[in-house]
Amino acid sequence: MILSDCFEVNEAGHLTVGGCDTVELARAYGTPLYVMDENAVRRNCGLYRDALRECTGGRGMALYASKAFCCKEVCRIAAEEGMGLDVVSGGEIATARAAGFPAERVFFHGNNKTRAEIDLALEYGVGRFVADNLEELGRLQRAAQEKGTVARVLLRVKPGVEAHTHAFIKTGQIDSKFGFALSTGEAREAAERALSLPNVELMGLHCHIGSQIFEIAPFLLAAERLLGLRKEIYRETGRSLPEMNLGGGYGIRYVEGDDPIPYGKELHVVAETVARRCAEDGMETPFLYLEPGRSIVGDAGLTLYEVGSVKTIPGVRSYVAVDGGMTDNPRYALYQAAYTAVVANKAAGPADFCATLAGKCCESGDLLQESAWIQKPEEGDLLAVLCTGAYNYSMASNYNRIPRPAVVMVRDGRARVIVRRETYEDLLRCDC
Amino acid sequence: MILSDCFEVNEAGHLTVGGCDTVELARAYGTPLYVMDENAVRRNCGLYRDALRECTGGRGMALYASKAFCCKEVCRIAAEEGMGLDVVSGGEIATARAAGFPAERVFFHGNNKTRAEIDLALEYGVGRFVADNLEELGRLQRAAQEKGTVARVLLRVKPGVEAHTHAFIKTGQIDSKFGFALSTGEAREAAERALSLPNVELMGLHCHIGSQIFEIAPFLLAAERLLGLRKEIYRETGRSLPEMNLGGGYGIRYVEGDDPIPYGKELHVVAETVARRCAEDGMETPFLYLEPGRSIVGDAGLTLYEVGSVKTIPGVRSYVAVDGGMTDNPRYALYQAAYTAVVANKAAGPADFCATLAGKCCESGDLLQESAWIQKPEEGDLLAVLCTGAYNYSMASNYNRIPRPAVVMVRDGRARVIVRRETYEDLLRCDC
Repeated sequence: MILSDCFEVNEAGHLTVGGCDTVELARAYGTPLYVMDENAVRRNCGLYRDALRECTGGRGMALYASKAFCCKEVCRIAAEEGMGLDVVSGGEIATARAAGFPAERVFFHGNNKTRAEIDLALEYGVGRFVADNLEELGRLQRAAQEKGTVARVLLRVKPGVEAHTHAFIKTGQIDSKFGFALSTGEAREAAERALSLPNVELMGLHCHIGSQIFEIAPFLLAAERLLGLRKEIYRETGRSLPEMNLGGGYGIRYVEGDDPIPYGKELHVVAETVARRCAEDGMETPFLYLEPGRSIVGDAGLTLYEVGSVKTIPGVRSYVAVDGGMTDNPRYALYQAAYTAVVANKAAGPADFCATLAGKCCESGDLLQESAWIQKPEEGDLLAVLCTGAYNYSMASNYNRIPRPAVVMVRDGRARVIVRRETYEDLLRCDC
Repeated sequence: MILSDCFEVNEAGHLTVGGCDTVELARAYGTPLYVMDENAVRRNCGLYRDALRECTGGRGMALYASKAFCCKEVCRIAAEEGMGLDVVSGGEIATARAAGFPAERVFFHGNNKTRAEIDLALEYGVGRFVADNLEELGRLQRAAQEKGTVARVLLRVKPGVEAHTHAFIKTGQIDSKFGFALSTGEAREAAERALSLPNVELMGLHCHIGSQIFEIAPFLLAAERLLGLRKEIYRETGRSLPEMNLGGGYGIRYVEGDDPIPYGKELHVVAETVARRCAEDGMETPFLYLEPGRSIVGDAGLTLYEVGSVKTIPGVRSYVAVDGGMTDNPRYALYQAAYTAVVANKAAGPADFCATLAGKCCESGDLLQESAWIQKPEEGDLLAVLCTGAYNYSMASNYNRIPRPAVVMVRDGRARVIVRRETYEDLLRCDC
């Protein structure tokens, strides 16, 4: 097992994923290629679903944050696994709809929903709008009124807690484009505004405190602060908001040093904290939502590339050029994100070659990783980058007019295409 | 005029581009919208074409580096203007071909050309391959041999000069994924290797020293170094390479402080230096190529967005949310690239409001600019970001399942769509 239990090495010394030999997958489907392990995706959904059900006595639901990887088949799997769906655009709504996702379990997020997107969401009948700003509340009211319906709303609150890998900060005043600040009174005013709108029904509060988080403490603090605001709203308006959404941000293991806590298991700490605080305040415990994205699909995927050249600059470093790069995985270019790589057809060998993994884009910054320890590669070898299931396909571009790779879903040794490879015809289809 | 002579303000106080009112364009074609001024693109082509023709006595050609913005219509315009074309992938070759671009004027670049791309390029009949590494020379030889043809090649050389805005460095040993290092002897060995291959014809040397460069000196130094290598190759092999390609990297004005030199006018300095040095060495002056990309299309374009909300966090900053962002322009997220923005329907007013321009992606880093001085905006206003003609459409993604905008070409007050807007159907077309 390497990093995640879906990656193994077989007797031929080849890397496998979901029981499939990666060398065979590359031969059958070409490179670059995204591969996802269906069992891992379903297992990850199950961890949140079951834990949340247990520790809330059935008064909780996990929503898959589809921005991590949005395609019809993954939406279908999330639906089958009893998840809700967090969508952030008309395009994600269109995907959910095409996949037959139950609309009432779809929550529409985003800091700038256009009127056209709001109309689409109301027609589809999404369960909730997570409202970001006052202008949006106005658009929701007008759109719902015109359609003779009601928009059910959670308010996105900046609780003054911000967390990322290994650290979190508590700030009074959050500098973010998202949501209503708690500390400035803006969130309370927004709640009053939402409660005053006849075609908007305020159901609860939402927060999202960061990404790739490795601690439970910031989630607890954020929950406490949302409960404080909920109590304040109750005191002032008499309305006890029935729902609370603590967002996502649960970290995964990209490299050996990463040490994510088992969020499924630890959820009871959050649920208990919420229940205890509500009991102390004499208020009903709200229905609880969580929105994992990365931790549903991230460690279930890998990307396969063919090596084109190995260029060693004496005393400087070695560049290994592959047939993909920032077009299929821009996360290193954007955030210097850490990944683990393996020469898939030599996976049983020692990882004793230090390389910079370079993409094929005409751009110096097109790197997949620097100082990665891998098996010594040569032209024609197969390079695998692990744990690319989240924010890779979804962030892919056609920069340099490079077609986006196919996505193959594997399960128990069998493979099927869930997103086909783009063709040159696809690249030209919008050109006049 | 604002930054570039294609942007003006009309009597209604609206920003215009190529004689078209941006408010009318947004109404007719929707937002976000890329707009390109055809006259500006043709003028920029003409500056390089005419200057190069003059100062080389007809022994020079400018190639448009299509990675800056590759679509059929821009390829057609470049062809009409007498440019060659720099392509970096099978997708750019397919676009050139679909546009009817003369194959002999197409140069195929890139640090990792796949065998399939090389085959495509040979079938099309591209003029030159700019070879990056030894493995590629091997692939070129095998592919050309199998097809019974010859691949004409320039070698990409790292001359030990690296330049970006306002600065350049001279290093003995360049740390780059691109090309053959001059200082290590690698470039000379590669030339010997290329000269030994029966189906490869070595035509000359190529370098590319950076991007958004504001000086002529680094180009001169790079040229001198390439000429030194050319002379060395001549001494050792008796072959006087007939061509030299100095790449691109010519800067444009993104913000008022940028001060690009007039490269068209200054080309004679480069041409004279090359001619003088060759005369001194008793060698023939090579045919000269340049590869401008950004400076052909960059200042000819703008992007129009609708403002969705204005969020002022007291004592912190104001966020202006628009209906696009890092999906149509990832350059701020990637490089903190500077841009000039204007509230297009209030362009005659004072730019006295300091704002962070935020996109609509569910990602904190989805910003278009920080601390931008613009006219005070409100919901429904039209925001223009100027000089987005290069590396915006070409780098665009569907992150968050956001469709890519249309591109409208304007000329003398008339507009036409050259790339149509993506639909939700387009986003779903590869999903199984």
